[in-house]
Amino acid sequence: MRYTIFGESHGPAIGVVMEGVPAGLVLDEGAIAAQLARRAPGKSPLATARKETDAVQILSGVFEGKTTGTPLAMVIANADQHSGDYESLRYTPRPSHGDYPGFVKSGGCLDYRGGGHFSGRLTAPLVAAGAVARQLLAPRGIAIGAHISAIYGISDAVLEDPEELLAVSQKEFPVLDDAKGEEMQAAILDAKEEQDSVGGSIECVVTGLPAGLGAPDFGCNVEGIFSQYLFAVPAVKGVDFGAGVAFALMRGSEANDPLVVQDGVITAKSNHAGGINGGMTNGMPVVFEVTLRPTPSIALPQESVDLRTGEEVEIAVKGRHDPCIVPRAVPVIEAAAALAACEVLGF
Amino acid sequence: MRYTIFGESHGPAIGVVMEGVPAGLVLDEGAIAAQLARRAPGKSPLATARKETDAVQILSGVFEGKTTGTPLAMVIANADQHSGDYESLRYTPRPSHGDYPGFVKSGGCLDYRGGGHFSGRLTAPLVAAGAVARQLLAPRGIAIGAHISAIYGISDAVLEDPEELLAVSQKEFPVLDDAKGEEMQAAILDAKEEQDSVGGSIECVVTGLPAGLGAPDFGCNVEGIFSQYLFAVPAVKGVDFGAGVAFALMRGSEANDPLVVQDGVITAKSNHAGGINGGMTNGMPVVFEVTLRPTPSIALPQESVDLRTGEEVEIAVKGRHDPCIVPRAVPVIEAAAALAACEVLGF
Amino acid sequence: MRYTIFGESHGPAIGVVMEGVPAGLVLDEGAIAAQLARRAPGKSPLATARKETDAVQILSGVFEGKTTGTPLAMVIANADQHSGDYESLRYTPRPSHGDYPGFVKSGGCLDYRGGGHFSGRLTAPLVAAGAVARQLLAPRGIAIGAHISAIYGISDAVLEDPEELLAVSQKEFPVLDDAKGEEMQAAILDAKEEQDSVGGSIECVVTGLPAGLGAPDFGCNVEGIFSQYLFAVPAVKGVDFGAGVAFALMRGSEANDPLVVQDGVITAKSNHAGGINGGMTNGMPVVFEVTLRPTPSIALPQESVDLRTGEEVEIAVKGRHDPCIVPRAVPVIEAAAALAACEVLGF
Amino acid sequence: MRYTIFGESHGPAIGVVMEGVPAGLVLDEGAIAAQLARRAPGKSPLATARKETDAVQILSGVFEGKTTGTPLAMVIANADQHSGDYESLRYTPRPSHGDYPGFVKSGGCLDYRGGGHFSGRLTAPLVAAGAVARQLLAPRGIAIGAHISAIYGISDAVLEDPEELLAVSQKEFPVLDDAKGEEMQAAILDAKEEQDSVGGSIECVVTGLPAGLGAPDFGCNVEGIFSQYLFAVPAVKGVDFGAGVAFALMRGSEANDPLVVQDGVITAKSNHAGGINGGMTNGMPVVFEVTLRPTPSIALPQESVDLRTGEEVEIAVKGRHDPCIVPRAVPVIEAAAALAACEVLGF
Repeated sequence: MRYTIFGESHGPAIGVVMEGVPAGLVLDEGAIAAQLARRAPGKSPLATARKETDAVQILSGVFEGKTTGTPLAMVIANADQHSGDYESLRYTPRPSHGDYPGFVKSGGCLDYRGGGHFSGRLTAPLVAAGAVARQLLAPRGIAIGAHISAIYGISDAVLEDPEELLAVSQKEFPVLDDAKGEEMQAAILDAKEEQDSVGGSIECVVTGLPAGLGAPDFGCNVEGIFSQYLFAVPAVKGVDFGAGVAFALMRGSEANDPLVVQDGVITAKSNHAGGINGGMTNGMPVVFEVTLRPTPSIALPQESVDLRTGEEVEIAVKGRHDPCIVPRAVPVIEAAAALAACEVLGF
Repeated sequence: MRYTIFGESHGPAIGVVMEGVPAGLVLDEGAIAAQLARRAPGKSPLATARKETDAVQILSGVFEGKTTGTPLAMVIANADQHSGDYESLRYTPRPSHGDYPGFVKSGGCLDYRGGGHFSGRLTAPLVAAGAVARQLLAPRGIAIGAHISAIYGISDAVLEDPEELLAVSQKEFPVLDDAKGEEMQAAILDAKEEQDSVGGSIECVVTGLPAGLGAPDFGCNVEGIFSQYLFAVPAVKGVDFGAGVAFALMRGSEANDPLVVQDGVITAKSNHAGGINGGMTNGMPVVFEVTLRPTPSIALPQESVDLRTGEEVEIAVKGRHDPCIVPRAVPVIEAAAALAACEVLGF
Repeated sequence: MRYTIFGESHGPAIGVVMEGVPAGLVLDEGAIAAQLARRAPGKSPLATARKETDAVQILSGVFEGKTTGTPLAMVIANADQHSGDYESLRYTPRPSHGDYPGFVKSGGCLDYRGGGHFSGRLTAPLVAAGAVARQLLAPRGIAIGAHISAIYGISDAVLEDPEELLAVSQKEFPVLDDAKGEEMQAAILDAKEEQDSVGGSIECVVTGLPAGLGAPDFGCNVEGIFSQYLFAVPAVKGVDFGAGVAFALMRGSEANDPLVVQDGVITAKSNHAGGINGGMTNGMPVVFEVTLRPTPSIALPQESVDLRTGEEVEIAVKGRHDPCIVPRAVPVIEAAAALAACEVLGF
Repeated sequence: MRYTIFGESHGPAIGVVMEGVPAGLVLDEGAIAAQLARRAPGKSPLATARKETDAVQILSGVFEGKTTGTPLAMVIANADQHSGDYESLRYTPRPSHGDYPGFVKSGGCLDYRGGGHFSGRLTAPLVAAGAVARQLLAPRGIAIGAHISAIYGISDAVLEDPEELLAVSQKEFPVLDDAKGEEMQAAILDAKEEQDSVGGSIECVVTGLPAGLGAPDFGCNVEGIFSQYLFAVPAVKGVDFGAGVAFALMRGSEANDPLVVQDGVITAKSNHAGGINGGMTNGMPVVFEVTLRPTPSIALPQESVDLRTGEEVEIAVKGRHDPCIVPRAVPVIEAAAALAACEVLGF
């Protein structure tokens, strides 16, 4: 299975083509719409005011409600575009955004409107593809959940039971500890008030993957496969499995997960490894955390350079932006994890 | 360019085949040997006592001292094997090691001796391949350096100037602050004394990559490409670019790297992004940190399960193991980064 | 560069996504339409009466008339569908068509209407993709032409000068010898009259490829790359380079192309090798011939099996079909060759 | 599963690395040796006098006689090299050989001795890899056989029953009609006598592949997959499936294979399609024919160009060469077919 996302934020449409989806899946289009609704903006003061209906049209690969095994193309028409907001940014790249390297890479031939192909809007087809992937995983007992693990230094409660995330991720603001969630939301609104943005992190779990998938080798190891999908999500700057960066604080005797037998099945007493040893699944839930940078598009004045004249200039980003991408990224990270899990399973 | 590593720790030989190496490179075999010497064990009390001569034999792809553009195969014969040490572990997997998922994956058909294909020994051909990659990068002004950024919670000084790492990485114990380095070494020896191991982290920098390489898309984005190579290094559990996990503590106004003009060239005042925006290089050094778990092979008694009987057992790992893999992993991470940089450049 | 075709003959739309198209190409949409017009049916009694407007809508990857380097998606809406014609064929596969293996592969979940994804209609997006590829090749001096080399045993004149094909391929009925072309057309109309179809072959030339591209190895050799693209064209059953099957009649002294110097450039006196030695281009035009089977959809009664009952049945294919696909396949083969040439050049 | 061949004809060794071989296969090394013996030269006056012991050493991926699922590396040491024979050819490429494009591609940095990496000797590791593939296919009821279908215009009898080839291919000179075989051998010896070479063709069959494998799409279609492997065999210039080039002489009513029920299974009355419809297997034997050009290395004087001076020169190829590569290519084509069948099956 392989997916290709296409489109620009202010072009006619964005979409995705999935190759290798097995035939015979009764495709639940409502479930695709439900996942897209989770990431849709315009619902709360935490997110951009841009409205996106995100109605998916399936162009191919489905017949009489079932997948046919041929390439599955889904398209989402663009709407509610304020392209004029971006005219002033055409030659003055936003710091820490794809604008500048994108300009260099394309020799100036890029659709600068709304971030073009580098826009967070392109995560909509990713979520749609992930929703298809989830429907392949569910009958195999594989489920995915995530929570906001931190925003601007405010951390959620520590995850004790990975299964818990499957329900938590459905919350409007998916955290384990709602009090911490309120603090996080306040931090986002503060940043918004001050024309700024904040970063954060998401912890995600994939339950039900059997032991023995993957390999240690380049291109086959489970961490590498997941990271490939996760880093393709805009704003993700770090991917850490299991104990993650805390491994640097640990001894082997603390970090090792003792092997035991439970209900006749070999399992581990703890899951510091995040379900992966030697690049292979070990039968425990795959657990990882991604760090997302603060949205680079902020309304505060910033230093940039005019690409035509080479002169330093001050810019202020207009347009409508998320003061924090993390809440809306939860279903996106889950979608990426679903696609990664499909690759690990050999779809 | 593509590399394939083969071999088992106690088999006749290990090696690597590199496809797509450009023709006409005057190959410096001494430089390959020098990189291998950096990772070779048996040199200090910090590492395993296992001696590995690691002499590389080039089987193909080089003629009269130059690469021919055909597949370049390098082989390293194995020696100094104490296979008997592992007999007792055949059916009692070491916790947090690839033993158990490897057993499941292979249906029991794996070379259990010395970790087999999952052994850290397989990083020797990776270093050899990386040494070839470095020779392609050097004439393009691209260099790679790394330091041990932390061991068992003891952190090295903060990196101010990425260029500094190019020299630091050549140190016997590559840290910016040697006093911190001594503390780290003491922590390793403490762990060794107590038959335990410790984890840590390595920060690595790739200087000289031009702006505009990569793309935001799956399979093409620079973070995803690097992570694919880095997670293929045994024990790596996290990969974080630029400010990394600290992005979760930041506001956009802090995290953004202002664009300025320096000597007529557009650059950034800071490098929180680690040289990558929107999945593309921005012309600043690519900077990332990897977290390495403590070696799972420790001599302390541990809980395991006998795979034949399904009974819980206690094991004590014999054999010769590194109490901390981090120091020897420095050239390995650099090698992975060199191969990743080649892919990013389109080799 | 990579292309993915999606769609079903009677679905809402068909299309193609091209990844890796370089940025900055001034895209000539008229040239795309012109190529599609070459393969469009409904123009002559030689082809199906089905009308296809084949208007390409570009969804992404082009901005202000230039390619942006991001995925280029093109969509063609379907129209003029007579889906009812196919209802009777749903469970009685047409002999020698993809119907039967497609049914097995998909477990019965396939869009049977009009051949679904296996329809020759899917060559329209292939031609569109090829038209983009041609625009990358032209500025590099690379051109592509083809002629109908045989239909139902009637052979065109022998090609003396490969360059000649660049003009000949633009003919309404592209043959070197128009008298032969009239015979071929008569053979097609005879077959049509008798509710039958005929096969044939197309010879194609790619001029301007420099020497030294490709490699002998699997996945890299020029013949293998071209064949991968050519066999993806429905009905192609054979691909032969240079002297092709006639090599089996030759001695080395006849088959070898003597090397000579012409205008200071090394070239060959003859081109039996079809421009390829050892899997690499040698600087001569790449020449190959493809054999296309007769259209399997014929109105004559045929033996089939009812997939529901397992009983042998007689079928007569209704619907509108080409009595000979070869004339309309000429631009399709050229498109496949253009995409292959791009891969060989490293796009 | 993926294979990578490395090595040069006169280097220290040649070999192959196979990735993705499933674990648990009891590897029959004798069967590998037996396949290599089929292609070994030095046995008859029909082939080169060069002796090659072709003893395969397995470096990895096999433990206690079974595959481990890790990369399987096989190496064959080179011996009996007369490198001096080639010195005179270093700068005077043999017409129609890879010498000239190889020189251009590598900027002159190629191992010219014995054809280097472009040598037919590199088919030895291909045969070894194919022998492993065959051991994966056999338990699934999949078998492969081939015969020499023509040499220098002398055709073998027409194949009636594909199963027949499984035995015929084991003959010393594998033809259906031994009288024709004698004529062919005489033609080879005549050519040898006259310091020339001859071309020919091989027809190959893969029996036992189930229906419904593959897809019509680029990269997935069965003809494309097979052709990729077959064109990677040196000297192969054409690949034609089923009726092959004869499709250009046929009507649909002749070419179509009527569907019938036999022993409760859907099958076809004839197999003009060569077991493939719409790029997918249809359950009938996969049948194809490859055309091999005459060996370009002949002792007769030939026109070439001195690459140093740009002057036209006459050369006479010394060294030991096959007057006809076809007989020794039979096991090579079968090996390529075995690897292709593995890919089609999803290994």
